[in-house]
Amino acid sequence: MTADLIVTNALIVTADAAGSVVADGAIAVVGGRIARIGTAAEIGTDAREVLAAQGRLLMPGLINTHCHAGCSLFRGLVEGLALEPWLAQVWRAEAAILTPETCRLGARLGLAEQLLGGVTTVMDMYWRPRATVAAARDLGMRVATGGIFVDGPGMDGLDADARLREARRFLDDFGDAEDVLPGVFPHGAYTVSPALLRASWELAAEAGAPWSTHAAETRAEQADVTNRYGRSVIRHFAYHGLLDARSVLAHCVWLDDEEIDLLAATGATVSHNPVSNLKLASGIARIPDLLDAGVRVGLGTDGAISGNDIDLWRALRLAATLHKGATLRADAVSTLQALHMVTRDAAAALGAADRLGTLETGKFADMILLDLKRPHATPLFDPLTHIVHSAAASDVVDVFVGGRRVVRGGVLARLDIADTLAEVEALVPRIAASVA
Amino acid sequence: MTADLIVTNALIVTADAAGSVVADGAIAVVGGRIARIGTAAEIGTDAREVLAAQGRLLMPGLINTHCHAGCSLFRGLVEGLALEPWLAQVWRAEAAILTPETCRLGARLGLAEQLLGGVTTVMDMYWRPRATVAAARDLGMRVATGGIFVDGPGMDGLDADARLREARRFLDDFGDAEDVLPGVFPHGAYTVSPALLRASWELAAEAGAPWSTHAAETRAEQADVTNRYGRSVIRHFAYHGLLDARSVLAHCVWLDDEEIDLLAATGATVSHNPVSNLKLASGIARIPDLLDAGVRVGLGTDGAISGNDIDLWRALRLAATLHKGATLRADAVSTLQALHMVTRDAAAALGAADRLGTLETGKFADMILLDLKRPHATPLFDPLTHIVHSAAASDVVDVFVGGRRVVRGGVLARLDIADTLAEVEALVPRIAASVA
Repeated sequence: MTADLIVTNALIVTADAAGSVVADGAIAVVGGRIARIGTAAEIGTDAREVLAAQGRLLMPGLINTHCHAGCSLFRGLVEGLALEPWLAQVWRAEAAILTPETCRLGARLGLAEQLLGGVTTVMDMYWRPRATVAAARDLGMRVATGGIFVDGPGMDGLDADARLREARRFLDDFGDAEDVLPGVFPHGAYTVSPALLRASWELAAEAGAPWSTHAAETRAEQADVTNRYGRSVIRHFAYHGLLDARSVLAHCVWLDDEEIDLLAATGATVSHNPVSNLKLASGIARIPDLLDAGVRVGLGTDGAISGNDIDLWRALRLAATLHKGATLRADAVSTLQALHMVTRDAAAALGAADRLGTLETGKFADMILLDLKRPHATPLFDPLTHIVHSAAASDVVDVFVGGRRVVRGGVLARLDIADTLAEVEALVPRIAASVA
Repeated sequence: MTADLIVTNALIVTADAAGSVVADGAIAVVGGRIARIGTAAEIGTDAREVLAAQGRLLMPGLINTHCHAGCSLFRGLVEGLALEPWLAQVWRAEAAILTPETCRLGARLGLAEQLLGGVTTVMDMYWRPRATVAAARDLGMRVATGGIFVDGPGMDGLDADARLREARRFLDDFGDAEDVLPGVFPHGAYTVSPALLRASWELAAEAGAPWSTHAAETRAEQADVTNRYGRSVIRHFAYHGLLDARSVLAHCVWLDDEEIDLLAATGATVSHNPVSNLKLASGIARIPDLLDAGVRVGLGTDGAISGNDIDLWRALRLAATLHKGATLRADAVSTLQALHMVTRDAAAALGAADRLGTLETGKFADMILLDLKRPHATPLFDPLTHIVHSAAASDVVDVFVGGRRVVRGGVLARLDIADTLAEVEALVPRIAASVA
């Protein structure tokens, strides 16, 4: 059968369970999905479009399991503070600036940065999730997002009932969309009441959707929640029945052994955000212990206000090296474990293991090409080592989402990024004034 | 007076003591040095060449205080091991491959990666330092290097007398060179006898040259040296009179309070190599304590075999964030302190504070232009925050060394990198076989 697209003559890293590699490989795409994968000779060139990759590395698009793309508007605005005082400042800026329009603009900025760097799916928690969807559609990428929950009016002025209504409507509206993975996003145990957490969980459970929240990010948060509810954050979630394989818990820096066992027993995912955890002085998560216990770990960038970029490659490199240094064990976090955190395991965290995360037959053709004719890619003994320990966002040349090329030669195919940058720059005086 | 070159309409970050910034600034270059610096209006355009920077960020070329560029030939070859077993494997590969010709090739690869990323001066310790100089001259960048010392024959087969003779000849030959900062490079307390360490020190002292070595990188090294000599590494150096403002000690991960005080009292520099220290499971250096004690800290990349890239921007970001996370202090390592580690303080470590490290009148015009029309540079509230917490090697567009443009639009001006990459690729089968 004539394929829609064949990418051939590529060094293919499938990111499957075994970390399989195909030298001089090719992938045939039909109807947005991978129809065949094999050597260039096996796959041939019977397609409406054939892209000769010239030895470039072809791998799955990366999946970011924790982000707030919209807050890219405030990149670098608040510096040198720990999470709690920092958040108070961020909220001042958000209150002054955010509307549905600026949320879409900020999301477009934050998602464009990621798509250019080969991230094809982002799990994003931010005000106005429909603005995030609109921004993702401007670019042609996938987004896992949905209604967010906090006690009090937040930046969108909704009360609890309205939040539940909006969140349910979001799940309904996007339940069948291929490019949106609808979920439910309460902010955290310290900002959402047990009753509202539970109500949000029930919405997610009913829809079979991911439920994602901040968890155990700082010592102060642990103390606050333990103080209020008599249980640490993870125990609090467990007590209220909020942990299963659909739970994606961002950060989890402060865990004791029993909490790690709880996460393992329930099948919850930890979204590890090492760049943010270092910059905001939150600490260093016990990732090797989590992996040893069998907890699924995905990687996240967090937002550009705690980054200050949104670079999942940087998070990947850091996840693969930080824990070696912190535990003094050179084999802590293997190369394949790290790779899976941004591909296969991240897809499972989003409930999309059947269609995302690896280059295997039947999955969406979300794939990226990396240039290898660069000094830091030479010599190259093992492609997985290259991906985890040498590659960078700037190596990404082409990006396909569902077989459609959305980045071509390092340039967005669907919009001119210069317009977005100019719109954001025009907001700078107002943003700066908001915290002055 | 008509300048040789004026770069104008740039956002200038001088990296001077105060972290001064000049909006819409310009720099006039005469005879390879900065003749004038000010606003575009003040400097004008009376020059043989005028470069309109269109709002790009102009800053000093970065200075790397610890590297082994030549070992880029072995990038990614030996993975998942702690320093000591790793080093044994690396030495096998080196013994099989290294000649003066392959040393020059490896240095060209490792230095090209850095120059493309805006590093204009590298302190490099490797076999065949004249090959490193030749490679740096192929590219048009500065290098601080010189004779290296180990007990035993090493990879160049020299005995101790020949090493001393060669090291002295290197100091003599390059004492007047503008592009070479000759120094003396014993490998470390665990690989060089006290007598040879002392002899190497005397050579450096006589020439007023930097003396740089590995120090206190791992717990095993500390135990080994303490076992053999009855003193920890830093005390061992102090006992033999090897510490003053010309000493550049790479790593210093394992220090007690008294050792930190010793470093502060002698004026020695610590070259912090956070990427290598994490990857090789060496540990996390006490950088905030060193800074608090007044010890000068420079940044290093180490080699590509412990990296696996040579990205000083990555080291910069990590130095500015890692210690916040490790100490739970969000103000640990300020943005300006981090910036100085790759500019002003690094120049002082190399004994070149009079001519390198900042954009100030009278200094060499070693300067780089960063593109700011990128998502991760938008919005930009503070240029220092951008440099330390958002910028990346791939943002570097143009690089000047002594006022000469050696990178133009992201491309090396003096050689075609494709040739170097092809030469290295041709060596891959032999390199792989060396550790098989």
